[in-house]
Amino acid sequence: MAAFTKQEYKERVSNTKKKMNEWGVDLLLISQPANMNYLTGYDGWSFYVHQCVLVSLDQEEPVWIGRGMDANGARITTFLPDENIHEYADDYVQSLVKHPMHFIADIIKKNGWDKKRIGVEMDQFYFTHRNYVELEKKLPDAAFVDANTLVNWVRIVKSEAEIEYLKAAGKIAVKVMDAAIANINVGARECDAAAAIAHAQYTGTEEFAGDYPAIVPLMMAGEATKTPHLTWSGKRYEKDEAVLLELSGVYKHYHAPIARTLFLGQNPPKLMQDTARVVIDGLAETLDFIKPGVSAEEIEAEWRRAISHSTVVKESRLGYSIGVNYPPDWGEQTVSFRPGDKTVMQPNMTIHLIPGIWYDDVGFEIDATIRLTETGYESIYEYPTEIFLK
Amino acid sequence: MAAFTKQEYKERVSNTKKKMNEWGVDLLLISQPANMNYLTGYDGWSFYVHQCVLVSLDQEEPVWIGRGMDANGARITTFLPDENIHEYADDYVQSLVKHPMHFIADIIKKNGWDKKRIGVEMDQFYFTHRNYVELEKKLPDAAFVDANTLVNWVRIVKSEAEIEYLKAAGKIAVKVMDAAIANINVGARECDAAAAIAHAQYTGTEEFAGDYPAIVPLMMAGEATKTPHLTWSGKRYEKDEAVLLELSGVYKHYHAPIARTLFLGQNPPKLMQDTARVVIDGLAETLDFIKPGVSAEEIEAEWRRAISHSTVVKESRLGYSIGVNYPPDWGEQTVSFRPGDKTVMQPNMTIHLIPGIWYDDVGFEIDATIRLTETGYESIYEYPTEIFLK
Repeated sequence: MAAFTKQEYKERVSNTKKKMNEWGVDLLLISQPANMNYLTGYDGWSFYVHQCVLVSLDQEEPVWIGRGMDANGARITTFLPDENIHEYADDYVQSLVKHPMHFIADIIKKNGWDKKRIGVEMDQFYFTHRNYVELEKKLPDAAFVDANTLVNWVRIVKSEAEIEYLKAAGKIAVKVMDAAIANINVGARECDAAAAIAHAQYTGTEEFAGDYPAIVPLMMAGEATKTPHLTWSGKRYEKDEAVLLELSGVYKHYHAPIARTLFLGQNPPKLMQDTARVVIDGLAETLDFIKPGVSAEEIEAEWRRAISHSTVVKESRLGYSIGVNYPPDWGEQTVSFRPGDKTVMQPNMTIHLIPGIWYDDVGFEIDATIRLTETGYESIYEYPTEIFLK
Repeated sequence: MAAFTKQEYKERVSNTKKKMNEWGVDLLLISQPANMNYLTGYDGWSFYVHQCVLVSLDQEEPVWIGRGMDANGARITTFLPDENIHEYADDYVQSLVKHPMHFIADIIKKNGWDKKRIGVEMDQFYFTHRNYVELEKKLPDAAFVDANTLVNWVRIVKSEAEIEYLKAAGKIAVKVMDAAIANINVGARECDAAAAIAHAQYTGTEEFAGDYPAIVPLMMAGEATKTPHLTWSGKRYEKDEAVLLELSGVYKHYHAPIARTLFLGQNPPKLMQDTARVVIDGLAETLDFIKPGVSAEEIEAEWRRAISHSTVVKESRLGYSIGVNYPPDWGEQTVSFRPGDKTVMQPNMTIHLIPGIWYDDVGFEIDATIRLTETGYESIYEYPTEIFLK
């Protein structure tokens, strides 16, 4: 059973077709798993082989094409009628002589779409260079258009049903961070803390079953706090070590990221305390500024203004749009809060602001996951904003 | 600290250069995370942005190029000297005007590699079509060669140190399946069983810290047993339901997959029992046949011979090579056990045979994770081969 009503999928497809018209695309070939899910409900860990969803301006409902063994998965998880589900034989998988794009090209031909303007996701993982080469070879009369992030931009404003899923994810996020703080102690192994975190992520709450995150727990301790994307080992936590945590609660693939910083002692270094103060206050001031009508770059400028009295430097983007996602990224790849991004905030956009600092001698992370309301913003979850001392 | 000795990485790089010579590649550009890890030790969840490792025939050690915030991660996890680590500025990330491949092309030029034969992984996720387009634009004098799976083929025969990691993963795999069987009960939620499984995967054993798998727990119950790649929900297990489990133990990204089938009752359907008997016996006969010198397609033919007395049909490949990996796939994308694959078995190849059956009315999964010895094979773990009744 798909995660949303058929009506909701139909609206998404309709909004996608509007954007296809704007972008000059007749037929859209979607490989990115979150976009496939968004348009059809499809939900399976089959994205390690080639598969796609086709959306054509001249056909009401999308088409799913994938590996034979996954077609029953599409029948179970999508809203699509059986005739819109096509399966390729197993000898197409990782073959040197056949390629799944040949099968997909044949379906495009059978539907008379081979002379159309075909949009493909040129810079999305899951659409390889060879996908493009094989499609082009088999469809010499087609004109290929870069439709990278076309569906991602449709996804940027959430429905009320999506907001409910994000709030469920937010409830899980609180439990996930609670589990992290409870289980990270001097002498404990990093892997055992990671296990407690994953347990909280998958279990969820009594009401809402947890799901797997698009990014596993990022948890840097000691020397590793100078970088943001390491995971865990069998190392034991040491006294007076800082621990950076970037985690997420997830419900039906909707993400509520949550990032906090622990210190395994009572006296964090002064530089860490000073940095934390600047970042926590700067984030609060930035949040106060957020409302519909302001742009992403204005929000980022407000953040820089708010910390300009300090020596804190944040070179990377302040945040990005979030929602439904699959590995390897929970970011939506649309708006980025940084200079030059003129995206204007609208109600029901959902964003993750993470002013993380990774200096060579100190690291600090905190975040906010919010949705835009009619007049300002609402937090997806509430969690204390401080350095947690243990 | 890298997971293996510097000497071991140097041998891997040396073996890679031999294969580059065979394939006609002067400079190799590697984006696949497992290949980056294999060549340098690099280990971080940063593969959601573009990054790469370069191997040049005229330079001893590889070069790592990635996002600024991840460079310290490369300094911590690789064996590379600091001058071989290059970082691009954050405004290259998901930008419409700049692309990380421009930065990478500049480094290629600075090193005088821009007139060389450059090998890229044309059909690997993490090397998008746009990566290719931008590289080609910036390096008009280069000749591009498809080096897809070049490093994967170097990885196919494991070192003794890698075998030790796989055996550690095997110890974890046993605990993971134990946790699954203990926690899947009539009335329990699927998500709570998934949480127990993830906990076992991440915790590992007292001696060996667990790691995250390249594929999350695949666990199909009831109707979902007709397809192999679904995950879990908040649904409660029901009496007389079958449950298919494809899981893995993981140690430092080395995978020991383990698949078994449960039945939540004492009387599985006759078709399931019959299918299980045929598959279990067929797998045992196939394993007896495996030794260095036989080919992948001969092994698969032996499997088909062993089940030919029955009505069981297995349309998909019987298995594949395994080792170090990252999401989305723990398969090595080299040998596939199916007709036409003439790869000859050698000692210290490690393989996953999974004769899974997903009919519309019954599913059954069992597997074997083995390494080739000088004279036959050795199991990476021991686990009962039966339908588990609960």
